[in-house]
Amino acid sequence: VVDERFFNNYGPFSLEEVLSISGARIYNRDENIDITAQIKGVGPLDLADSGELSFFSNPKYADAYKASKAGYCITAEKFANEAPKGMIVIVSENPTKAYAEIARMFFPEDPVIKSRIASSARIASSVSIGKNPVIGEGVVIAENVTLGDNCMIGHNVVIERGVVIGDDCKIGASATICYCIIKDRVSIYTGVRIGQDGFGFASDRSGHMKIPQLGRVIIGNDVEIGANTAIDRGAGPDTIIGDGCVIDNLVQIGHNVELGKNCVVVSQVGIAGSTKVGDFVVLGGQVGVAGHLSIESGVQVAAQSGVVSTIKAGMVVGGTPAVPIRDWHRQTIALKKLTNKVS
Amino acid sequence: VVDERFFNNYGPFSLEEVLSISGARIYNRDENIDITAQIKGVGPLDLADSGELSFFSNPKYADAYKASKAGYCITAEKFANEAPKGMIVIVSENPTKAYAEIARMFFPEDPVIKSRIASSARIASSVSIGKNPVIGEGVVIAENVTLGDNCMIGHNVVIERGVVIGDDCKIGASATICYCIIKDRVSIYTGVRIGQDGFGFASDRSGHMKIPQLGRVIIGNDVEIGANTAIDRGAGPDTIIGDGCVIDNLVQIGHNVELGKNCVVVSQVGIAGSTKVGDFVVLGGQVGVAGHLSIESGVQVAAQSGVVSTIKAGMVVGGTPAVPIRDWHRQTIALKKLTNKVS
Amino acid sequence: VVDERFFNNYGPFSLEEVLSISGARIYNRDENIDITAQIKGVGPLDLADSGELSFFSNPKYADAYKASKAGYCITAEKFANEAPKGMIVIVSENPTKAYAEIARMFFPEDPVIKSRIASSARIASSVSIGKNPVIGEGVVIAENVTLGDNCMIGHNVVIERGVVIGDDCKIGASATICYCIIKDRVSIYTGVRIGQDGFGFASDRSGHMKIPQLGRVIIGNDVEIGANTAIDRGAGPDTIIGDGCVIDNLVQIGHNVELGKNCVVVSQVGIAGSTKVGDFVVLGGQVGVAGHLSIESGVQVAAQSGVVSTIKAGMVVGGTPAVPIRDWHRQTIALKKLTNKVS
Repeated sequence: VVDERFFNNYGPFSLEEVLSISGARIYNRDENIDITAQIKGVGPLDLADSGELSFFSNPKYADAYKASKAGYCITAEKFANEAPKGMIVIVSENPTKAYAEIARMFFPEDPVIKSRIASSARIASSVSIGKNPVIGEGVVIAENVTLGDNCMIGHNVVIERGVVIGDDCKIGASATICYCIIKDRVSIYTGVRIGQDGFGFASDRSGHMKIPQLGRVIIGNDVEIGANTAIDRGAGPDTIIGDGCVIDNLVQIGHNVELGKNCVVVSQVGIAGSTKVGDFVVLGGQVGVAGHLSIESGVQVAAQSGVVSTIKAGMVVGGTPAVPIRDWHRQTIALKKLTNKVS
Repeated sequence: VVDERFFNNYGPFSLEEVLSISGARIYNRDENIDITAQIKGVGPLDLADSGELSFFSNPKYADAYKASKAGYCITAEKFANEAPKGMIVIVSENPTKAYAEIARMFFPEDPVIKSRIASSARIASSVSIGKNPVIGEGVVIAENVTLGDNCMIGHNVVIERGVVIGDDCKIGASATICYCIIKDRVSIYTGVRIGQDGFGFASDRSGHMKIPQLGRVIIGNDVEIGANTAIDRGAGPDTIIGDGCVIDNLVQIGHNVELGKNCVVVSQVGIAGSTKVGDFVVLGGQVGVAGHLSIESGVQVAAQSGVVSTIKAGMVVGGTPAVPIRDWHRQTIALKKLTNKVS
Repeated sequence: VVDERFFNNYGPFSLEEVLSISGARIYNRDENIDITAQIKGVGPLDLADSGELSFFSNPKYADAYKASKAGYCITAEKFANEAPKGMIVIVSENPTKAYAEIARMFFPEDPVIKSRIASSARIASSVSIGKNPVIGEGVVIAENVTLGDNCMIGHNVVIERGVVIGDDCKIGASATICYCIIKDRVSIYTGVRIGQDGFGFASDRSGHMKIPQLGRVIIGNDVEIGANTAIDRGAGPDTIIGDGCVIDNLVQIGHNVELGKNCVVVSQVGIAGSTKVGDFVVLGGQVGVAGHLSIESGVQVAAQSGVVSTIKAGMVVGGTPAVPIRDWHRQTIALKKLTNKVS
């Protein structure tokens, strides 16, 4: 069911190979299942056919699961009994991850692409380029840039003077990068703006004088940065994105912000200048975080919340100003009761 | 009053032609009005002169209406009597639409442009291009793309492999499009990002593994997508934008989202993954909609609201979490009263 | 401590020169200080060394100040006594501005760059270009554009027909500009979208018909517009950005909006159509302002607030809908108390 105009299917793979890469196991134990059977590909519950593998984990889609014609389905053990007749159910402790492993086997994120530097790319003579580069049309790479091995630079990307990019990085079309050091396996999506100077002014009655922004942006390994997101460089300290962070589209990250490791920053979040964020922090969509705060490791912030004070490790908060999530839910209930009285 | 460095005026047109295209009628019935009189152009109430036509519908601008020197003005019948002396008042059931029809006669949205493919455009040999293309400088069109007739592709646009674009489409400068099927008469503005992979991960203590995103973006007829907006492709199902939807700037649309027909999505809205939106839904500016919800047809959501549950057809809601709009207003009032007690 | 791969240090400068450009004075009055001593550069409190100058004004960083090894530090007189031993303390009424002046002496915002027009730039023959242009690769400049003196146009920028740009302007890479008149010393960052048509439709049961947008965008002197921000042109009136306004990243400014002088618009703010904003107004991050309102001079709006009515001059407001800031704080407190009762 995957559109092969857009995706190259490296399958089929046998059920045995699928089990092996995912670490999952067959649930239908008493049935006589042929593990050499060939699986053609993957697809959603309502579209996959008897030769394909699907995936079920969110109970909201239980109806689609029960009605699915998929021949194979990865799920959690607790859902295995609800599977439709004839479906071979494959269970895993982390079915999402097992599915991801299998889908990546059929449709590798980085299919082998022939190294190529487009003739219209403008690359300064002092640029250092690693092995197997793919550099698109209209790309501009300025003096003293360093690119690692196996980098893919999309069309019309601009990389300014001195930027360092590690191995196995992908930069999406029309992105612009300056004053930035990037480690390995980083994906920067289309239209991302990295390294422009932060929003810092010395203001008085005559107006706003720009304060020179003399820091950089430092991006760790395995980071993903979504389309049209903006990350300003530091004012003096650096702006730092820790290893393994995933940042969605249209996010704003101000100067001097530090994200720890493996943070999840959902779309349209804004983090104001100099705020420090710990490891594995989750910021829901449209969250705003004020400047000069500390959001400690493991904190989760509900979508659209406004964080105006330091949040201790592991807390789950919501609302504007953000409070512990139970208190926020109580506020919502209290407000509803109050309204009933008023009406 | 329109700056002719930027806009080509196809006028003058006679009053008769103006009435004919708009279906509007003259209100000043007992006066002796010459319907062959020539109207030079259109302009706002405070700038239009005696040879020009203006427009009034929002009572906030009643003062400007009463003081206007415009020779002609489209409005609703209820406002006709407040017109200044000497103004020829033209009334319509839908004055905004009547004005739009007239303004488009003077200043057509798509003036005839000579077909041209810029010499610096890089177009793969397998690309199929319809009649009368206008393709700008620095454009990149990859293998197996199909463009319909009369398409205008702005400078530095990137269209990736396999994308299908229908007839009479306009793609603004620096937009990037991949994994996408677009029907006819679609306007995509500058800097739009379509088709990048959605924000889907299999997470555990070791970090976040990307789940391959194997769907597409399907865009219906007569859709408009505003500047720097991002629309992710589906994870397996497609992301779908229905016919006639108008989407403003800086909007985020997550993977698997479906919009029905004729929705209005105002600037900076974010719609999280897998949410289904009906027909003629209006989402005010900065609204956030959580994932996996159903927002049924005719729903209107007040600006900045946060929708966290399914909304039934025709409801008008506001607040975070969004509630029926009357309840939201009551909450605001109740909170105010409460505050008076506190102070 | 500044990374010289990215920044050219024009220093060292003597202490005397530093005092002279900033109008600041030495606080350590009884000590025997050599004003001919050479200062190598500037840096943050925790990184600057004995030959460098740092800056302290936010009490949150008092610990870093007290532990700093910086040889010199600009601060306010009230903090001078807390300086560590051996630090030469320089005090000013406006220490932020004094620091900005000094940092700009070491690292000028506009280092002298050799005038150059890239060979891949496509410039229409009717374009008028002032003295000392720097025009990047892949730039497109259409018919009848006027560029003043000393303009820097980044790579892959698109400037459409008739646009006028004054002297000493900088346009960041991949920005697109149309239907726009820009005065002097304006900085437009990467990916900015200016002049696309506003979000105006005549709607009925058949759908949404675009109303031609026949105004322009007028940008005053000394304006800064952040990365990926979108400013729509007027519908008939112009969209106007007053002198000295500073606008952050990912901001949305609707058609017909007028900003007065020296406004500060923080990241991800959205201002809906036809709203008029006075002088020195500050809109915090993610603020939403509804259309057709007047936000008078000196107003300050707290981050994430939603403004739905006119705000009188000098007021400080917060919340959604925005109320005077004291009332908003009271609401927050009242809600908290209410919750305690509920729990």
